[in-house]
Parts: sequence; structure tokens; C-alpha cells
Amino acid sequence: MDKDRLLSLLDNFAIEVPSWGFADTGTRFGKFLQDAAAVDLSDKLEDAGQCHALTGCCPTVAMHVLWDFTKGQNPAEVSALAEKFGVKIGSINANLFQDQCYKYGSFGNPDPAVRERALEHVVDCVELSRDLKSPITTLWFADGTNYPGQDSMRSRKRRFEETLKKAYKKLDKEQQFLIEYKPFEPAFYQTDIGDWGMSYIFCKKLGPKAKVLVDTGHHFQSQNIEQIVAWLLDEQMLGGFHFNDRRYADDDLTLGSIDPYQIFRIFHEIHSYAADLGAYPPIAYMIDQSHNLKPKVEAMVQTAVTAQELYLKAAMVDRDELLAAQAKTDIVAAETILKNAFFADVSGVLKQWRKAKGLPVDPIAALRKSNYIARKGTERVAKRVSLGLVSGGGYA
Amino acid sequence: MDKDRLLSLLDNFAIEVPSWGFADTGTRFGKFLQDAAAVDLSDKLEDAGQCHALTGCCPTVAMHVLWDFTKGQNPAEVSALAEKFGVKIGSINANLFQDQCYKYGSFGNPDPAVRERALEHVVDCVELSRDLKSPITTLWFADGTNYPGQDSMRSRKRRFEETLKKAYKKLDKEQQFLIEYKPFEPAFYQTDIGDWGMSYIFCKKLGPKAKVLVDTGHHFQSQNIEQIVAWLLDEQMLGGFHFNDRRYADDDLTLGSIDPYQIFRIFHEIHSYAADLGAYPPIAYMIDQSHNLKPKVEAMVQTAVTAQELYLKAAMVDRDELLAAQAKTDIVAAETILKNAFFADVSGVLKQWRKAKGLPVDPIAALRKSNYIARKGTERVAKRVSLGLVSGGGYA
Amino acid sequence: MDKDRLLSLLDNFAIEVPSWGFADTGTRFGKFLQDAAAVDLSDKLEDAGQCHALTGCCPTVAMHVLWDFTKGQNPAEVSALAEKFGVKIGSINANLFQDQCYKYGSFGNPDPAVRERALEHVVDCVELSRDLKSPITTLWFADGTNYPGQDSMRSRKRRFEETLKKAYKKLDKEQQFLIEYKPFEPAFYQTDIGDWGMSYIFCKKLGPKAKVLVDTGHHFQSQNIEQIVAWLLDEQMLGGFHFNDRRYADDDLTLGSIDPYQIFRIFHEIHSYAADLGAYPPIAYMIDQSHNLKPKVEAMVQTAVTAQELYLKAAMVDRDELLAAQAKTDIVAAETILKNAFFADVSGVLKQWRKAKGLPVDPIAALRKSNYIARKGTERVAKRVSLGLVSGGGYA
Amino acid sequence: MDKDRLLSLLDNFAIEVPSWGFADTGTRFGKFLQDAAAVDLSDKLEDAGQCHALTGCCPTVAMHVLWDFTKGQNPAEVSALAEKFGVKIGSINANLFQDQCYKYGSFGNPDPAVRERALEHVVDCVELSRDLKSPITTLWFADGTNYPGQDSMRSRKRRFEETLKKAYKKLDKEQQFLIEYKPFEPAFYQTDIGDWGMSYIFCKKLGPKAKVLVDTGHHFQSQNIEQIVAWLLDEQMLGGFHFNDRRYADDDLTLGSIDPYQIFRIFHEIHSYAADLGAYPPIAYMIDQSHNLKPKVEAMVQTAVTAQELYLKAAMVDRDELLAAQAKTDIVAAETILKNAFFADVSGVLKQWRKAKGLPVDPIAALRKSNYIARKGTERVAKRVSLGLVSGGGYA
Repeated sequence: MDKDRLLSLLDNFAIEVPSWGFADTGTRFGKFLQDAAAVDLSDKLEDAGQCHALTGCCPTVAMHVLWDFTKGQNPAEVSALAEKFGVKIGSINANLFQDQCYKYGSFGNPDPAVRERALEHVVDCVELSRDLKSPITTLWFADGTNYPGQDSMRSRKRRFEETLKKAYKKLDKEQQFLIEYKPFEPAFYQTDIGDWGMSYIFCKKLGPKAKVLVDTGHHFQSQNIEQIVAWLLDEQMLGGFHFNDRRYADDDLTLGSIDPYQIFRIFHEIHSYAADLGAYPPIAYMIDQSHNLKPKVEAMVQTAVTAQELYLKAAMVDRDELLAAQAKTDIVAAETILKNAFFADVSGVLKQWRKAKGLPVDPIAALRKSNYIARKGTERVAKRVSLGLVSGGGYA
Repeated sequence: MDKDRLLSLLDNFAIEVPSWGFADTGTRFGKFLQDAAAVDLSDKLEDAGQCHALTGCCPTVAMHVLWDFTKGQNPAEVSALAEKFGVKIGSINANLFQDQCYKYGSFGNPDPAVRERALEHVVDCVELSRDLKSPITTLWFADGTNYPGQDSMRSRKRRFEETLKKAYKKLDKEQQFLIEYKPFEPAFYQTDIGDWGMSYIFCKKLGPKAKVLVDTGHHFQSQNIEQIVAWLLDEQMLGGFHFNDRRYADDDLTLGSIDPYQIFRIFHEIHSYAADLGAYPPIAYMIDQSHNLKPKVEAMVQTAVTAQELYLKAAMVDRDELLAAQAKTDIVAAETILKNAFFADVSGVLKQWRKAKGLPVDPIAALRKSNYIARKGTERVAKRVSLGLVSGGGYA
Repeated sequence: MDKDRLLSLLDNFAIEVPSWGFADTGTRFGKFLQDAAAVDLSDKLEDAGQCHALTGCCPTVAMHVLWDFTKGQNPAEVSALAEKFGVKIGSINANLFQDQCYKYGSFGNPDPAVRERALEHVVDCVELSRDLKSPITTLWFADGTNYPGQDSMRSRKRRFEETLKKAYKKLDKEQQFLIEYKPFEPAFYQTDIGDWGMSYIFCKKLGPKAKVLVDTGHHFQSQNIEQIVAWLLDEQMLGGFHFNDRRYADDDLTLGSIDPYQIFRIFHEIHSYAADLGAYPPIAYMIDQSHNLKPKVEAMVQTAVTAQELYLKAAMVDRDELLAAQAKTDIVAAETILKNAFFADVSGVLKQWRKAKGLPVDPIAALRKSNYIARKGTERVAKRVSLGLVSGGGYA
Repeated sequence: MDKDRLLSLLDNFAIEVPSWGFADTGTRFGKFLQDAAAVDLSDKLEDAGQCHALTGCCPTVAMHVLWDFTKGQNPAEVSALAEKFGVKIGSINANLFQDQCYKYGSFGNPDPAVRERALEHVVDCVELSRDLKSPITTLWFADGTNYPGQDSMRSRKRRFEETLKKAYKKLDKEQQFLIEYKPFEPAFYQTDIGDWGMSYIFCKKLGPKAKVLVDTGHHFQSQNIEQIVAWLLDEQMLGGFHFNDRRYADDDLTLGSIDPYQIFRIFHEIHSYAADLGAYPPIAYMIDQSHNLKPKVEAMVQTAVTAQELYLKAAMVDRDELLAAQAKTDIVAAETILKNAFFADVSGVLKQWRKAKGLPVDPIAALRKSNYIARKGTERVAKRVSLGLVSGGGYA
């Protein structure tokens, strides 16, 4: 692939960072706190701005409604704050799992009052999305049950369908729902939207403004994610990604840290589909990770850089040769074409692109040199003291 | 639940035995041969007849086209042979994986000539199904790839869609395709119809005569099968089951041998759906197992009896109490209602039903007492000698 | 098995409840709070006492050092408090994962100061165990790494070996370490004691006072837990159990709720070993569950009752017949012997035993009738208000 | 790492090819035959010779006793035949699963006569190993059970221990047993040597001439193989590898085709151990794959080349920097050091080494150019016709 096309691909590749990736996170066993963890929305947007300033590919920030917005907050102020830090507000993520009323679910809850409350929250998200001119509302439902018999799975499905349809009506033609699926956690017997097939069926029932959101960590072990991506692309039902990596469950490790070849193959499906179509389909590339141990901004910059690298590598697949090898069922040749691209050195292209954009050639090194994390650590420790905050707290 | 309803449920519960379950099977590492393994179609039908004579719930036999029919065979003769042994011909199972031409797939093969040949085979199956007055043709596709890059997953999907549509046109209005899914084996990187969502999408594209076939062994580890069943029921897309049990992969062990509670929960979903609907939906209950170690007829009788027991146990769930407990989200009560039914003693009802039908009260004991297996062993050893055969046919 | 032997088995079967099973727990996504959740150690011991009063089989309570003991607390007072509620202090559980210093591990931490601090904590536990006359200290290490390269797995192993040996020296001859293993969570790339083999090797290096602790939720999917139990028994290396059930990961659901046959098979291995040995080996049966949704005391009582039932059912296996069937490799007969015991009705024996002990015949019903949970709910809400506590707090 | 060290590493890296990798293999659903599949031992050795001629790193061939040797065959003739094709006889692989007598196991069989026969076979293997001056006998036991209750797992363990000890006595001081483990297939409920812990315990009971054999496909999903390797190295119990790749079960795909980073990390553990030790430990690197679809010789050459590449890449890890990063728990830096090595371009070193050895610079291209596969296809089709054979032997 010629360099100009690669450079142009980089121009058009953006990956959204999540506001919650800058705050303290952990497991049910506790959180290990970081001095530089974001204390408030301003910190999160500042960190996001730092990522974008270093990588040039993270222009937007996903918002988590309950964690980032306060009741009555003026969306225009939030937009302005983002702009101040050089980023824009991206997708609006509903929170339908944290409030005590969601103990038995949100859209699937047997209690109509809870469903109504959940619906209102989603409608609020849709309005926020409209106000912020950020078309995507992502819906992740933690709904499910922990024990056989706890509830009727069919009834829950029907409640979902009904409530989703009510919410969908609130979308204007620019807006979109991306509906996520997940096999388990926090529900341990059954999750209401447990796999891509369930998400797909709901989206089809809703209409063209609902698409499937693929979180790379939300699959059964050994499930072929790139095949799901290929199917959703072919059915024009892929809305976007929540990127991360994992080894066991929904570990939320940084992208490509465990199985980089897997992410490469996902990107390969997208380049391949684009080649057939003649254009890249609209896909929201978003990060959804828990930086429990790695320094948060560093982890995010590393992830953005890794995404660029793997996206470029996948673009290096020699498509004509691949089609020719496939036509002959020359397995070794076809596989080698993929492997050569995977191991191809794309650092030259990346450097050239970064230089042309006035970006640091090595974003991680630049971050480290800047002392940003240490500075923010000092500032935010002071801020927490002044606010009387601790952050964290344990399990049990 | 009153006894009369349970007896009536038994009257209407039939489970189909597979002809290949009576022949020698094994793993890729070899087959352990049994003297009494069926040598030919007549043996298989005789064994099936024996199962039905002992259990009263196995009136039909699934046929495996390549293994059971010879070119030019008169279907009427096959029906007559089945009738002689007291059974009827059941579903017609296409074989699209055994011939050398299927090395790179059947409906998904890059070579149009192979796709054409596979289509012809399916059309032959449809005609056989019509001739035998057995409406169901089951389609299991081993198609897939072993290595990344080997073929385009989207192209394979499109070839499938196109060829399936051609085959579907051959169905008359009484006939049905049941389309199976399986995550892996024999394909090890990607299987073209790899999960229920893919099977569902193809069935929807085909029309009302195509339904999803759930093989209980064809799932990812920990995947919630009863939820898939609940969804397919609610979407009116469940065609039937290939029953078996497993611990690891598609182990094809006998039903309920590893996790009986799981099968119980599947039956619970069906009874629950029927209660809402006011009638039992048409579902083809079929066995698909490999009796590598257990004596084949004994394994089949054990399976049929286990299926009856778990079906009855699931019918014992006190539905009114369950709905009441669910409405209160009284988890412990709801779970206990399921558990009580699971551990309920249904032997009395089964005995009564068997007596009323003139069946042995303990089918396994009756089989053992009859010496059927030893007698057939002697006969079939002699038959194999006279035919110059070593093993009984069938896969692996 | 004659009734007297079953009654005597019940006399000798005790299962320890964990203090943390009465407090609010959740997932990383948050906790759903219960009014009746224990606020302090006194509440926990009171709840444990209630469980024992109802079931007669939960005489001891596992303590979680950091959560249950305050610095300088007089062990005699804790023992007295337990006694007041009709229970005794059981195993002492170290906490080596919660403090901020454990971010990169405890015994495996690269920093010797942290290892020293962790060692001190374990030594404190050993002393507490001595003071409380409760011989078992259980060691669960959350230690591991999240990313390839983060640390040397061999170095971590060596640090573990060294520090474990130092701790082991503090045990007097009545005391015991039970060492737990777990494949993942909270470590997501590698856990230092990741499977039973690693725990076994460390125990062997330590000496006869160290045994393996099997948490039923700490296994790979499809791993055969009863086989591990059989091996550890045969090697005299089984120290005890942390019982719970799960479907996906370490879900910490209540015992037998997902796969009751699995727990039955574990108990079968123990009865079978005892029959060979002529005596039951010393095994610590302990519960380790997260009652995120079920009412806590109710979940615990249900678990104790389920454990008794499955333990009795497993004792119903007709051992002579089983050995005879195994000797003939009569698989169907052998399997049926297990199944018959699993589905055997043990309610009569349980009732008789409970009556003889002056216990309620139906412990759950008695609990519900007593209104204990509602009463404690009211009391503890008031206590929390008076203490200014909320409990909980969310993720991120 | 300087080039000379890399070249020297290549000089000392050899990977053994399995004779059965050149014969037709398949799944239980059938075999897709290849014209060029080896018909007899001579073909296998010729193919192995071809692999070594092209790669320079496959000097030895693993033998499968039942498939490769005929009763009364003169070992010297086999050695001479190997020599003729430029290779040597490598490890001797026992076959304890194929004969009908092994239906219920070999060393674990309840029938002492079968155990005796299995023992004799292993003793024959040991003698063959002595005669062939090939010190390693590898033992893979397919033993296990398919159903709960089928046999006593403890009794099987004891039979194994007893029979293994008898076999071990036959080893002279140069000889070695490598004992393999596998969680399932062909046994589906329980496998007698089901994981590395079981293999380890048996080896420890036997003595220093028994070591654990790690087959990369014989693990639970998500199990951390490199950690097992690190432990076995540290315990000096690692005997060798059976290399392959897989996505689901024991898929026996070619090395590095699914998750190349995983194999890289295994090699990294070995280089790291060698660096600490000052020398490379003796490890038998062996391939064990099923080339069901790929042309067999091509698959083997591809595998050998991939092994060299990943072995070199792992050697490129900057060890000093890694230790420094680990000492600071600088996770991102440590991970990046691994990733940089993984993506390092080692083609230059490989080319230089190949040129120096008079080997083709691109072994796959050279193989294709040579037309070896087509020529052998023609020859072997003729040979099969002349021998009246259909398929080339080997398992499945």
C-alpha cells in the first residue's frame, strides 16, 4: 500500500477516549489509587486533551452520564470546557446499573416504575446528546439474573423490547443508539443482552438508528470476534467498538496487550469491507478500559498509539494477493500475507504523519518527558484534600 | 401438577433416535468397536425399533443420507423396513462434510462447482424427505476455515445465503429446514454458521420454513443455552434439538450425564412458553450422541428414559407459585420451586404410564433381561464376517 | 445406607460460615445495599448464630482479619461475643490484597518492604489463630500481574517460597495453613498461585502443616474439580473447601445453585475416600460466597441446608454395587448408581435429625416466620444512621 | 542482542518433526486426503529430510511406534533409512490408545492384563529408544473416563503410579520419559493425567529421568502456559514441548497461526531462565500438529521457520532494560520491551544464518520452486495404487 494512502488513513482514524479511563478504577476487591487520577470532569477533559495533544487521534471524549454530569448542568459549559482542553464531547453513555433501584435490572426490571425511571434516564441521555451535538448514545445494560428461576427470561426480553422502543422514538434522525452485549458480570446466571445475536435482534426491531456495539472483552472464551464483525458489517449493523483486551473475562486490559493479532484481524475485516464497498463505513472506535495499575494517561496514550499501529498494519495486507491466494485456497500463502502485514514496520509512516501534524514522534516518551502525570498528581492530591475526598473504598 | 396432565404430557412427548447412534463411532484417535454395533440400515432400524418397544417414546428414526441410503434406493422400501421394526422414518440429515470435495466447504466453498454439488445433495434430501413423508431436513454445515486469511468470511456468508436460498425454493409447504450452528470442529479457526445468531439470520432470510436447530453440545463454555431457547421460542424460530451432554467441547455424551439440571432448565423454558401460549409449540426433539463406550442400544434407551424424566420434572414446576415469587423478586423461593421440581420423584407417574402402555416398567432392566445386545452381537459379528467388513460404518 | 449411619454423618458434618457473607458485597460495578446487612462484627456473629440456631450445622465463623478485627482488640472478647451468639470463631483469613501497598502484590511483591509487611500480617493472623484457639489460617493471595513483562514470574515464585517459609515457621504444631489457588481476578495476566498444582508445590515445600484449599469457584471452565479433590485426598494434601457455585468466573453464587451434580460428585469422592480409609479425613468445609442479591442470612441458611442435602445424597451411593459395576466396566449401571443417589429423597432423614436436635424442620421457613431479617433490617438501619455510615460506594 | 549471539542461538536451536505430521490426518468427521501424504516410513523420513534440507533446523524425526515400526523390524535399518534422507531418529512415542484393548484405558485400565500389555509396549519403546540411541520416550496417555462413576479416579491414579514405576525401572541412565498431560479428548469426563500438576506429581514419584512434556494445545482455555513453563523450569521438571497452536480445544493447528505472541512469551521464559542460569537447559522442542488442510511438508517447513523466528524475536528482549523496568514496576516500559522484541525484524539474521549454512534464504519459496510436493504426489499416488491402499495411515 502506498504511503499516501496510509497517511490519509491516519488522517481519518480517530479513537474516542472514555472519561472514566482517567478516574480511579479497580476490581470488587478494591481500588489502587493514583495521585494523578482525575478528580472531576475538568480533570478528565484535561487528561483527554493531553492524550489528543500527544497522539492527534483522540479528538473526542466519551461521557458517562451519572459520573460526569450533575443535575441541571449546562451542556454548553461542558462543551466549552472540553474545547478549552482541545477536545470535543463524544458519545453519551447511559448508566443503568449503579442506582439501588436497578438491583433487579433496568429495562428488564419486573417493576414498571423502575423501567420508567430507566427510560427517563435514557431519554435524558438522548437530550444531552442532542444538546451536545454528539449523535451517539451508547446503551450497556447490566440487566440479568443471578439464579435460575429468579425471573422469566422471556418476560425480561419483552420488557426490554417495549422500553427500548419507547426510548428509540426520542431519537431524531441524526441520533443513534449503539447497543452493547455482554455474556456475564455483573449478572452471573443470565444477562438480558448476552450476545451479539440478542443485540442484533433488538436493533432490527428498533430501526436504522440502532446499531450493535462490539466490546472486544464481552465474548465467550475462544469466540471469533472478527467473524462477528464481518457479519455485522455485511448486515450493515455494526455501530462501533469498545476496545480493550483480555485474557479471561471482561478484564478491560489495554488494547493489544494480550493478543495483538486478534485486534489486527478485526481491523483487517474493516479494511477488507471498505475495499469492497469503495468507502469506509461509519464506525465509532471507542476505548473502554480499566487502568487499574498502569498510569491512566500513559495507558490511554499507549492504547491510542497501539490502535494506530494495528490499524495501519491491517491496512498493509496486500489485498490483491490475498484474494488471489484465497481463490486458489492457497492457505499458507494467504496466511503469510496476513502475517507479513501484522509484522510489517509501520513506524516510518507514523513518524512521518506525526511530524507533518506537529505531534511528538514518540507520544509516550513525550508524555514522560513532560512530567504531566507527576504535575497532575501533585495538583490533584491537593484538590482532593481541599474537597475532603478519598476516592475508592473496598469491597465487602 | 395433576397426574392426568403428566400422563398426557408423556403421551405427547416423543424423542427421535439417530440411525448413526447405533453404529460404531469414535474420536479422531480411533473407534472402539462393539460386536452389536449396527452393520447396515436394517440393523439400525431394528435397534431403533427395540428402543421404541422398550420406551414407547422413540417412534421415529433420523436418517443420515450418505450413511443410510444407497443411490437408487426405493424410499418405499426403507419406509417398509422401518415399519417392520415398529418405527417410522424421521428427519433427513444431509451430509455435506464427508466427501473429499468438501475439503474447503460445501455451501461456503469458493468453488462454484462444489457449491452446486452440495446444493444437489440437499435437493436430493428434500426429495427424499418428500418421498418418505418426513417433513424435516436438517442441515449441519461443517464449513469454515482453519487459518486466518484462508478465505473471506463475508464471501463465505454470501455464498451460503445464495445457495441456501436456492435449496429453500425446493421445499413444499409441508417441508422444513432445520439449520444447525456449531462454534468449532471440524473447522478450527472459524465456522461459517458458528452460533445461533448466524443460524437465526439465515433462517430469517429464507422464510417461515427454516428454523434454528439447537444442538446442546454446540455452544461456548458457560453459554446459557436455556436463554437461547427462550429467545428462539419467543421469536418463533426454534425448530428442534439435537440432544446430548458434554463437559468440554462437542463431546456427544448421553443426555443429562454431566449436567442434568441444565437440560431440566431447557425443558422448563418450553413448558413455561407452552403455558403462556396455551399449547405446546411444534419442536423436533432429536438425539445426537456418540456412544463410543456405552453399549449403543442401552445408551439410547437410557437417554430416552432420562429425557422423559427431565421433561416430567420440568413440568412439575409450580408455575403459579413461580410467577408469584418472581413478581416479588423472591429469589430463594423462585429457585427452590425449580429445585423442588428437579428433585421431584417422577418414577410413579412413569411407571403408571408404562404399565398403561404395556411397556416394561424399567426399560433398561428389560433390555438387559432380554439379552438383545448379546444376541445381536453374535448375529452381527457373523454378518460382518460374511460381508468382509471390519467396522460398522458411521463417522470417525 | 442405613438411617443411623446417615444420622451419624449429619452429626459430624459442619460447615463454616464466613463473616463477610453477612455484610454488603457487590461487583466492581457497585453494591446493592441491604438494610439487614451486618454493620459490625457483632452483627456478623449474631447472623452466624442465627444460621447455626436454624440449621445446627454451622457452629463456627470464618473471620476476615482486616474487616473483623481492630488493632489491639482482645481476642478473648471476640470469642466471648461469638459464644454469646452460640457460635465459635473458626478459620482466620488473612487479607493481603486491600491495602494500597499491595498494588503489585504481597508475598510476590518486588519490594522487600511490602513482603515484610505482608509477612507481619500473616504472623499476626497466626497469633490471632493461636489466641482464638482456632487452628486454621487461610491464605489467599491476589498476587499476580496484569500485563506480560510486568514482572518475572519465576522471581515472584521465589519470593513467595521464601516468605511462605518464614511464615510457616511461626506455626505451632496444632496450627495449619490452608493455601488457596485461583486462576484470575483481580490479576488478569497471571496469578502467582494460579492452580492447584502451584498450591500443592508450595505446600509440599513448607511441610505437613500446609494443605491445599479448594475454592470451587477458582477453576478454569470445564476443569474437573472432583478429580483434583480425589488427587489431593490421595496425596493427603486436601485441607478444606471454600464452597460456592458459579457459571462463568468466580461468581460466588450459592452452593449448588448452578450445578448441584458437581458438588454431589465432590462429596462422593470424600465418602469414597473415607470408606477406603475407614475414617473421614479432617477437611475444613467452609462457605465463601457473595450474597449480592439474595438476603444474606437466608442465602447462608439455604447454603448450609443444600450442603447437608448433597452431602447426604452422596453418602447414599451404594458403594458395593458401584465397585461391582466398575469392576465390570458396566458404565450405565455405575452411572445410574450415582444418579439414583443424587436424586434420592433425603428429606426424611434430615427431618428426623432436625427433630432430634430440636431444630426447625424447615430452616428457611422458620427463618422467614421469625421475621429475623426484617427486625435486623430496622435495627441496623438505625445503627448505620447513628454511626453516620452509608456502606458501599461504586466503581470508577 | 548482538548478531553473533543470535546466529549462535540459531546454531543451537533444533525442532523435531513428527513422522505422523506427513501422513493423512483428520477429525472424527473424516480425512481429506492429499496425494503427497506419506504412505510409509520411508516417505515420512524423506519428507522430514526435505524439511531439514530446507530449514537446517529439523535434524530429527519423532517416531510413532505403532504407525512407524513393524514387529521384528531392525532398528539399525530404520536409522540407516533416516540417515539416507539426512535426518536422525528422535523421540520414541508410545501408542497406548489405539488397540481395542485400550477401550477403558492403558496404565489406568481396571484389567491388570491390559495394564501388563501396555507396560510391555512401553518397555518395547524403551528398548527401541536404546537401540536407536534416541534417549527420549514420550508417554501420552489417552486414559480416562467418559461418565461420572465409570471408574474410581483414585484407583486409576494408583494403577498409573504402580505401572509407571515398573516402566521407569527399565530406563538406563541416558534415557528419559517425557510425560504429557491433556485435559480432555478422547476422554470426556476425566483424563487420568489431566493437567501439568498431575504429570508433575507422577514425574516426582518416578525420579530424575521423568520430566513433564508440555503440549501447547493441551490446556484449558485462557490458562497461562508460559507461567507453567516458568514453574517447570524453576523446578527443573520441564522435559520438552509438543508445539502447535489452537483456538478452541486441541486443534493441532500450525505453530503461531492463531496467537503468535503466546509462543513468543513461552520462548521468552526460556531465554530468561537461560540468562539467569548462564546456560540453556536441555529442552526437547518437538512439533505435534495435524495438517488436515495445509500441504504437509509445506506446513512443517512453515512451522519450523515460524519457530525460528519467534525464538529469535524472544531472544531480542532487552533483558537489562526489562529487569530495570520490572524493578521500578514500570509496567508500560516493561510491556513495550516485550512488544518491541516481538515486532522486531529478524529476517536479516535469519537470511545471514541460512546463507552461511548453504540453506535457501526463503525455505517455503524454495520448497514451492522445487516442485517436491507435486512430484511426491505423483509417486505416492502410484505407490498407493500398487499397494492397494486408500489413505496414508496415521490417526483419525
